[in-house]
Amino acid sequence: MRLTQYFLPILKETPKEAEIVSHRLMLRAGMIRQQTAGIYSWLPLGKKVLDKICNIVREEQNRAGAIEIMMPTIQSADLWRESGRYDDYGKEMLRIEDRHERDLLYGPTNEEMVTDIFRSYVRSYKDLPLNLYHIQWKFRDEVRPRFGVMRSREFLMKDAYSFDVDYESAKVSYDRMFVAYLRTFERCGLKAIPMRADTGPIGGELSHEFIILASTGESEVFCHRDYLNMAVPSQAVNFADEGELADIVRQWTTPYAATEEMHDETAWNALPEDEKVAARGIEVGHIFHFGTKYSEPMKAVVTGPDGKDTPVFMGSYGIGPSRLIAAIIEASHDENGIIWPKGVAPFDVGLINMKPGDADCDAACEKIYADLQNAGLDVLYDDQDTRAGAKFATMDLIGLPIQIIAGPRGVKAGEVEIKHRATGEREVVPLSDLLNRFAG
Amino acid sequence: MRLTQYFLPILKETPKEAEIVSHRLMLRAGMIRQQTAGIYSWLPLGKKVLDKICNIVREEQNRAGAIEIMMPTIQSADLWRESGRYDDYGKEMLRIEDRHERDLLYGPTNEEMVTDIFRSYVRSYKDLPLNLYHIQWKFRDEVRPRFGVMRSREFLMKDAYSFDVDYESAKVSYDRMFVAYLRTFERCGLKAIPMRADTGPIGGELSHEFIILASTGESEVFCHRDYLNMAVPSQAVNFADEGELADIVRQWTTPYAATEEMHDETAWNALPEDEKVAARGIEVGHIFHFGTKYSEPMKAVVTGPDGKDTPVFMGSYGIGPSRLIAAIIEASHDENGIIWPKGVAPFDVGLINMKPGDADCDAACEKIYADLQNAGLDVLYDDQDTRAGAKFATMDLIGLPIQIIAGPRGVKAGEVEIKHRATGEREVVPLSDLLNRFAG
Repeated sequence: MRLTQYFLPILKETPKEAEIVSHRLMLRAGMIRQQTAGIYSWLPLGKKVLDKICNIVREEQNRAGAIEIMMPTIQSADLWRESGRYDDYGKEMLRIEDRHERDLLYGPTNEEMVTDIFRSYVRSYKDLPLNLYHIQWKFRDEVRPRFGVMRSREFLMKDAYSFDVDYESAKVSYDRMFVAYLRTFERCGLKAIPMRADTGPIGGELSHEFIILASTGESEVFCHRDYLNMAVPSQAVNFADEGELADIVRQWTTPYAATEEMHDETAWNALPEDEKVAARGIEVGHIFHFGTKYSEPMKAVVTGPDGKDTPVFMGSYGIGPSRLIAAIIEASHDENGIIWPKGVAPFDVGLINMKPGDADCDAACEKIYADLQNAGLDVLYDDQDTRAGAKFATMDLIGLPIQIIAGPRGVKAGEVEIKHRATGEREVVPLSDLLNRFAG
Repeated sequence: MRLTQYFLPILKETPKEAEIVSHRLMLRAGMIRQQTAGIYSWLPLGKKVLDKICNIVREEQNRAGAIEIMMPTIQSADLWRESGRYDDYGKEMLRIEDRHERDLLYGPTNEEMVTDIFRSYVRSYKDLPLNLYHIQWKFRDEVRPRFGVMRSREFLMKDAYSFDVDYESAKVSYDRMFVAYLRTFERCGLKAIPMRADTGPIGGELSHEFIILASTGESEVFCHRDYLNMAVPSQAVNFADEGELADIVRQWTTPYAATEEMHDETAWNALPEDEKVAARGIEVGHIFHFGTKYSEPMKAVVTGPDGKDTPVFMGSYGIGPSRLIAAIIEASHDENGIIWPKGVAPFDVGLINMKPGDADCDAACEKIYADLQNAGLDVLYDDQDTRAGAKFATMDLIGLPIQIIAGPRGVKAGEVEIKHRATGEREVVPLSDLLNRFAG
C-alpha cells in the first residue's frame, strides 16, 4: 500500500482523554476513533490488525475442531427470560423495543441463543461433541467506559460453545479450548497464564482466565515463576488425543496462579520468595464449564447411549479480539510507539523513500516495493513528500517489525538501510542482497 | 471437512413459513435459522458462503482503490440530528436509549458517521480522492420482514463512501464503483444490469440499481436485450484510467434499462419488440452520487487548489452480501436444490463414500480426500453411515459444483463417478486420473 493512497490519520498531539498507553498509541497511530462514549470506529490500520487477530483466533478454533457460525447481534428478550438471565443481567444489557413493542436486546453474550440453536437440531449423543463459535460484535453498557477498546461498550468477541453428553466429555472439550487458547495467545506474541477464576454471571464451577502480565494491568495477579518459561504446545498437538490434552492442561494448572479474587494467601506464602511473581495482569480470555445451567431450564436434551434423555453439558470460551489488541500494545511498546509482534503486525515491512521525486530513489523504491510484494510480503510504502523526521516518527509510531530506508546517497552506492523496530538495530544492506533477507 | 464432524442440519420437510424458493432452500440446506422475526443465525454452511461473497466484494473494492475500515453498529442520535435525518427516517430506524438516557440507534446506513470521520481528519483536496468502506451488520426495522435473508431486519451490508473535491472527480469515483460492481456480481455468478434508479432517503440526483433477472423478483424491470450478452470488464481494467472507466459506464448505460418507478413508456415503445426484455428483477446493489447533501450540513469541507474551502462531494455504494446469497439461489437452483456458481460454493467438491466401514471404500475415500485437499480444494466428505438416497439428496440440496461418488464395486475396479451438479452430467473416472481432472 502506498501511503499517498492510504488513509493513515496520525495525530501529532497526545490525546488528553486517553489514560493508558495503548489507548493513546491507538489514537495517535490512527487505528481507532471514538464515535461516542465507549463506541469506536476502526480506521484502516486498526482494521488490518483486527483482521490478523481474528484470523489467528479462527485458525486455532478450527484446528481444535470448533465450527464457525454467525449469530445476530440483536436477540429476543424471550430467550433470556427462559434462562432467567433477563432480569439478572442488570443495566449492562442494552434493552431495546422494536416498532411492534417487542422486547429485544443487543447480545452481551450468546449462551441462550446457541442453546436454542442446539435444541432445535440435535437430538442424539451420536452428534456430539459439538463446538460452535462465532466472531461477532457484542454490547455491554458499561457505566463508565474507558481505556479505549480495552473497556468499550461495543466490542468484538469470539465466543465458542461446547456441547457434550456428560461431565467427563465436557471436560475434554474444555481442555481442547484451553490448549487452543495457549496457542492463540502465543501466536499473538503474548505470554498468557491461565488462572482459576470466578465464574460471575456466566455461572458454573470450573473456569480459567488467561492473563498477560503488564505493568498497566487492571488487577493484581499472583503466579509461580515457572509459568514464565513454560513451553506452549506446537502446531503438532493432537486435539483428538484426550490424554495429551489433559497432560498439557495439568502442566499449565499445577503451579500456583490466581487472580486477586481467587488468591489463596496460605498457598502463596508456602512458596519460596524467588519463585513468586506478583504483578499486574490483563485478562485476554476466559473459559467456562457450566454444565447444565442453560440446557436444563431451556430443555436442550440429548438421548444418551442408554436411551434416556439428559440435559447437554456445556462450556463457553471467550476471547475479545478488540481488547486483545490493546493488551498487545500494553505489553509491547516503547516511548516512540507500538512494537508489533510479527504475527499481528498490520504490514510486514515499512519502506521509506527519503526523497520522492529523485529519479534513482523512486526507481529503487518501486523495485523494492514490487519485489517484496511478489515475495508475499505486505508492504506499506511511504512515498509521501514529507520531512525525514516525520517519516521516521510515523514508522516508529505504527510499529511495523522492519523498516527499509532508501535515500539518494545510499541508492547511488547500491544500498539501503534496514531498521528492526523491536531492537532499534540498523544495518546497511546491498540492494542486490535485500530480497534474500526476506526469503523464508 | 468430514460430515460426521460437521454441523449440517438438513431439514427433511419444506418449512411452511417460507414463501420464496431461496428462503425454503436456505432453511432446508441448514444454512440459516430464524431467531426472531427478520433476524437470522448463519449456520456453518451459510457462514461459508457469506465469507466467500464478502471476500469477492472485498477484493473488488480493494482493486478499485477503496480502503476498508470498520464502523460500529451503534451510533449516536446526535449525528443524525446534524444531517436532519433523525426525524425523517421513521420507524425503520431502531432507536435505543442507553443507561444514561442518551439517544442511540442501530445504524441502518453510515453516511453521517463516515462524514464525521472524514471531517475529523481530512482538510485538503490533496488527500482526495478517498473511498472508505466497511462490511458491517445493519438493522432496519421492516414492518413486515419476510423472504428470509432477502428482506430481513438485521442484515450484512458493504457500504462504501467516496469523497472528492468537485462534481467531475466525484463522477470518476462513481464510475470506479460502477465498474467494480459489474465485476463483483459477475464473480458471484450473476448477470446484473445497472438501471437508473430513484434515490429515496439517501438523496442525490444520480443513482443506479444493479438488478438481476429472476422470475421470483420483487419488481418489474425493463431493459434492452443487448444487456444479456454484454461483456463484463476483465481483471485487467485500469481503475486509474478515467477514460476507460467512462467508456465502460457509457456502454453499460446507453441501451434502455429501467426499474418500474423510473420506467419511460415512450422510450420503451420506441424499441423494436424483439429487443425488449420485460422481466422480474431483484436489486443486488445500489450506488448513489449525492454531492454535498451531508457535507454541507455537517461542515465536511476541504481546501481546494484555489485555497478556498468547499464542501466535499460524496457518493455511497451498497451491496448486501446476505441478500445477495438469496438472489444467487433465486437465479440458480432446480427442483433438487441449490446450484452454486463455482466462485461462491461453500465447498468445491462433495465426496460421497457409499459404504463407510468397507475397508477398500474407506481407504480410497481417505486418499481422495487428502489428495484433493493437498491440491488446494475445499472438500466436504460424506463419511456418514446413511442410506445412499439420503446422501445423494443432501449433496444435490446443498449444491456443490462437483460430486465424487465412491462405491465398493467401482473402487474395486479402480474408478469413481463424478457428477456435475449444474448439468447432471455423470462420468466414470479412473482413480489414477482423478486428480488430473482438478488440476488448474
